[in-house]
Amino acid sequence: MPFTVDFEPVGRRVRVEEGQTILEAARGMDLFGDGGMVAPCGGKGLCGRCRVRVPEGLLSPVTESEKRLLKKEELAAGYRLACQAAVLGPVKVELPAESLTGRQELQLEGTDITVVPDPNIRRHRLELQATTINYPRPVWQQVERSLREDYGLPEVRVDGDLIRLTPSLAEEGVATVTVRGREVVNIFFTGAPTAPLGLAVDLGTTKVAGFLVDLERGATLAGEGILNPQIAYGEDVMSRLAYVMEGAENYRRITQVIRDGLNRLLHTLAAKAGVLLQAVEEAVIVGNTAMHHLLLGLPVEQLARAPYVPAATVPVEVKARELGLDMAPGAVVYLMPPIAGFVGGDHVAMILGSRIDEAGPVTLGLDIGTNTEIVLARGGEMISCSCASGPAFEGAHIQQGMRAVDGAISQVRLSGAGMQVFWETIGGKPPLGICGSGVLDAVAELYREGVINDNGRLDRSHPRVRLAGEKGIAEYLLVPAAESGAGHDLVITQKDINEIQLAKAAIASGTKLLLQEAGLKEDDIEQVVVAGAFGTHLQLSSALAIGMFPGLPPERFRQVGNAAGTGARLALLSLSERRRAEDVARRVKYLELTAAPAFNDTFLSELIFPPLVAEQNNAGSFAQVRGI
Amino acid sequence: MPFTVDFEPVGRRVRVEEGQTILEAARGMDLFGDGGMVAPCGGKGLCGRCRVRVPEGLLSPVTESEKRLLKKEELAAGYRLACQAAVLGPVKVELPAESLTGRQELQLEGTDITVVPDPNIRRHRLELQATTINYPRPVWQQVERSLREDYGLPEVRVDGDLIRLTPSLAEEGVATVTVRGREVVNIFFTGAPTAPLGLAVDLGTTKVAGFLVDLERGATLAGEGILNPQIAYGEDVMSRLAYVMEGAENYRRITQVIRDGLNRLLHTLAAKAGVLLQAVEEAVIVGNTAMHHLLLGLPVEQLARAPYVPAATVPVEVKARELGLDMAPGAVVYLMPPIAGFVGGDHVAMILGSRIDEAGPVTLGLDIGTNTEIVLARGGEMISCSCASGPAFEGAHIQQGMRAVDGAISQVRLSGAGMQVFWETIGGKPPLGICGSGVLDAVAELYREGVINDNGRLDRSHPRVRLAGEKGIAEYLLVPAAESGAGHDLVITQKDINEIQLAKAAIASGTKLLLQEAGLKEDDIEQVVVAGAFGTHLQLSSALAIGMFPGLPPERFRQVGNAAGTGARLALLSLSERRRAEDVARRVKYLELTAAPAFNDTFLSELIFPPLVAEQNNAGSFAQVRGI
Repeated sequence: MPFTVDFEPVGRRVRVEEGQTILEAARGMDLFGDGGMVAPCGGKGLCGRCRVRVPEGLLSPVTESEKRLLKKEELAAGYRLACQAAVLGPVKVELPAESLTGRQELQLEGTDITVVPDPNIRRHRLELQATTINYPRPVWQQVERSLREDYGLPEVRVDGDLIRLTPSLAEEGVATVTVRGREVVNIFFTGAPTAPLGLAVDLGTTKVAGFLVDLERGATLAGEGILNPQIAYGEDVMSRLAYVMEGAENYRRITQVIRDGLNRLLHTLAAKAGVLLQAVEEAVIVGNTAMHHLLLGLPVEQLARAPYVPAATVPVEVKARELGLDMAPGAVVYLMPPIAGFVGGDHVAMILGSRIDEAGPVTLGLDIGTNTEIVLARGGEMISCSCASGPAFEGAHIQQGMRAVDGAISQVRLSGAGMQVFWETIGGKPPLGICGSGVLDAVAELYREGVINDNGRLDRSHPRVRLAGEKGIAEYLLVPAAESGAGHDLVITQKDINEIQLAKAAIASGTKLLLQEAGLKEDDIEQVVVAGAFGTHLQLSSALAIGMFPGLPPERFRQVGNAAGTGARLALLSLSERRRAEDVARRVKYLELTAAPAFNDTFLSELIFPPLVAEQNNAGSFAQVRGI
Repeated sequence: MPFTVDFEPVGRRVRVEEGQTILEAARGMDLFGDGGMVAPCGGKGLCGRCRVRVPEGLLSPVTESEKRLLKKEELAAGYRLACQAAVLGPVKVELPAESLTGRQELQLEGTDITVVPDPNIRRHRLELQATTINYPRPVWQQVERSLREDYGLPEVRVDGDLIRLTPSLAEEGVATVTVRGREVVNIFFTGAPTAPLGLAVDLGTTKVAGFLVDLERGATLAGEGILNPQIAYGEDVMSRLAYVMEGAENYRRITQVIRDGLNRLLHTLAAKAGVLLQAVEEAVIVGNTAMHHLLLGLPVEQLARAPYVPAATVPVEVKARELGLDMAPGAVVYLMPPIAGFVGGDHVAMILGSRIDEAGPVTLGLDIGTNTEIVLARGGEMISCSCASGPAFEGAHIQQGMRAVDGAISQVRLSGAGMQVFWETIGGKPPLGICGSGVLDAVAELYREGVINDNGRLDRSHPRVRLAGEKGIAEYLLVPAAESGAGHDLVITQKDINEIQLAKAAIASGTKLLLQEAGLKEDDIEQVVVAGAFGTHLQLSSALAIGMFPGLPPERFRQVGNAAGTGARLALLSLSERRRAEDVARRVKYLELTAAPAFNDTFLSELIFPPLVAEQNNAGSFAQVRGI
């Protein structure tokens, strides 16, 4: 005859036959699984996680498993394992908080975004028996049966390399397998292994940022940036595409160096976090379309020439080993889909990581780099474009430009009509050169102080302006040799200023044309999200002074850091975030600037700096200025 | 306001809004899809297959698509395309038989089995627009969108090699894509391509049989057999396993030769059938466990030594290109799962192909080879074993043995107390040697005629028996040199007879032990299925005379040919047949003979030939005997 089982605090009652376990009772009423009771071992008394307290009622005696997995005090307090305790009479069961999966929201480290971890892999524990002539079942036969019978996973496949690398003969003990879809991608034979880990990569033309993430708790265990080793074959996208189009051997080589680079990055991250590479069971890579294609070896001719389209805009999933990554044997790398030839998966990830896709107000999002991708969003509708802003902000094509490393001038302020120069370097080292934010500051300050006019032309009569070289190119003396760590003067040349003008005009034109396309005015923009390393370190006031951003009040701007990296981590941690990213990729409308009739006129007019306006003095941020 | 649409002959009525198409109306009431209306093009007016007749009612005017796809007479008779005709008033619609998918059963060529083609791939037609700067959508973006929007396939992936091999820029026109699960594995840009094709392979230790199958109509377009080229590295399973265990280089080599061999077989089949290799979009391979492992490069140590277990008993799916097969770019090869170390996927396929799994009566199934696999089935329960019957039936280890090719003596009959010999050769050529069925006949006839006793010993006083060689081994003169095409006498030696005795004892012991395990007697067997090439060509009376098969009336026996090959074709043609095979693989209980206590005693007693019984004279089958 059936007995009642009352579950508290959920207040639900179920009737079960004598001898059924509490876990079976919970399963029957959907208390099991997502949002319900946890039993990672499948109810075999192995994991001890289905503990419940039974204040009233008649149950079967405490089993050996329970003696092993519950403390004496717990047993005394009425705790039992739901999978072990059989119902022999009416029972009242208290579900402790830790026994409910309660899909908990976690803060994604380094961001203000919360996410429910729900990665594309699942781990399951199971018991193995020794393979013998009388029990001739190899490891994978036992795994397949357990996944089918204990976890309800039919038609399981096993990654071929995993079969090759794993001993076929089982020893008695507990194993943990990792399943992706219906494929087993990893196995551990030893006790409790590390949590499942994932690799998120923001693959840039210049920089590659990697994150090692705990896929259960959402924590970022290690982060690291390296230079993209493909730089040896071309500094920018176009020169790399030209290089690979010279021949298959070139293509093979450039693909190999980035794969090797990513694998080194992975090794570094694992060493930093002190974890096994074999526990890294999934990866997400986001990158611009060219980097995406060059990593995978996809056709690029149509990317380098009109109509400038990607070979594919579908998400690509590839075995980690095919990219040469030393992850779990069957691990898969997911590549965020690109939108267009110059709007890549990194843009999708940026939108995801900054939540622009769900922004209610009109939002402009910019990720500034050699190509700057811009998105204009309004109530879920999005238009994006890409503009060729050039590598000036990465310190390239600037006479004394350098990357943002120790010794780079990162901030500049002028006063006294451009006679006095204040500067700050990264790491407080003697100045060796100027990085992107320093160049931007310098140009903005030169304009503010009247050393250059609204055409960007240096005032050749200014005492710190001189003509240099055979051609007599005008340059502004920023740091004399005596003050510099480079042994020579540091200057801003007329050509440097022009590079910044071109970059500024590209970005401002892109913004304008997006606004036009959407039928909006600049002032309709309620929020501007500035993403990326440079975007985070630039002085907003300088960008505004030269008209690179819409002339809006500073409080409408939000500098969000590496939003693409955040988006990559989100897509790694949660399948629903990944689906959301794919939805973003499909929903974004792409505006091809070079096909827009108004582009040339807009670009030319945006070369001019905007009229100067009174603005907040931000000298306060120079707590430790060094100057001359 | 809504109008009624009445569908005949199904007798269903639906109400639709003005302007909806007949196809939309059919979709709304589940008349679409499996068993319902066909629209392979997704309702775009491309394929012309959703034709209906509308005897009454008001519809939108005939479109250009309809003018192109329907004949004038059809238009005059009231035929329309359901996807084009919009409902403008109450309508009566007749569904012609050819517009219903009506999952039709087809006879599988060369067998008496019917199957509903339902392969693991699906083709879809779609329209492409030219990729231009103003329509910057590459091929795969258009395909992904069409599959999602027109065919309801979300989250489509594209095989990486297919992306690499396919032009990225679309030209205007119709394309056909092949989808497997959620992955696109093939694309055709030209008009109507050939039907989707599949490759089925029965991969034996000695012979490899291949079939090229039309996956829409179920027809076998070509069949071909080759020798397994691994023979160069060992005649039987054990010698090949020993060879590969000598080193990784050996393993690489033996894997390569069979992959090359399969690819040559595929090329031959495609040439025979006159089809494109690119249209071969799925393959199923069934083989014994060792051949399966050696093809995939799986660990074999545990297979060559106790406990003699496979590395994996899960079905393996692998890209055709990884096995070196020149099929469609993203095509997949499915390997039928093995059951045990010496009961492979070919046994599963044999059971599937002979329907033993659904047999109601007690059924014994045998596939005779160097290893003979036997299954005993009763009401869906199955036990299988494998016995080492040796290569005698393939002509090996027989002094004048040869394979069943032209010139091989395939049938033998004696009379006059063994003084007269009648024989027949394959191809009617002068005899060069003796193949398996000939040796079996010879031994059975020698026993019947009293030239050997029940211990298999030759009567040395018989006029045709002589002692040969230094050791004076007894032999029976079958064909004197003058009659043979070999230029020397053809004989049956005492050792040859002993080989057949050993083979016979192995098979009979396996049968006995299976019966014991199931608690059945020999006479309980209601049906004996004899599969395989040798099993099909052997004289049943001879096999019964020497006690190789249970002593049952001949009408209980069924010689079914290459049932494993039939099973492979079934699993290729139909996903539900494949699932059924996997179910068989799981359900079969494996009996390890060498671990059975009664094995040795049974084997020894089965070496003795059974008492002679009066039997049907089958000389009638010797229509064209040649004799001496």
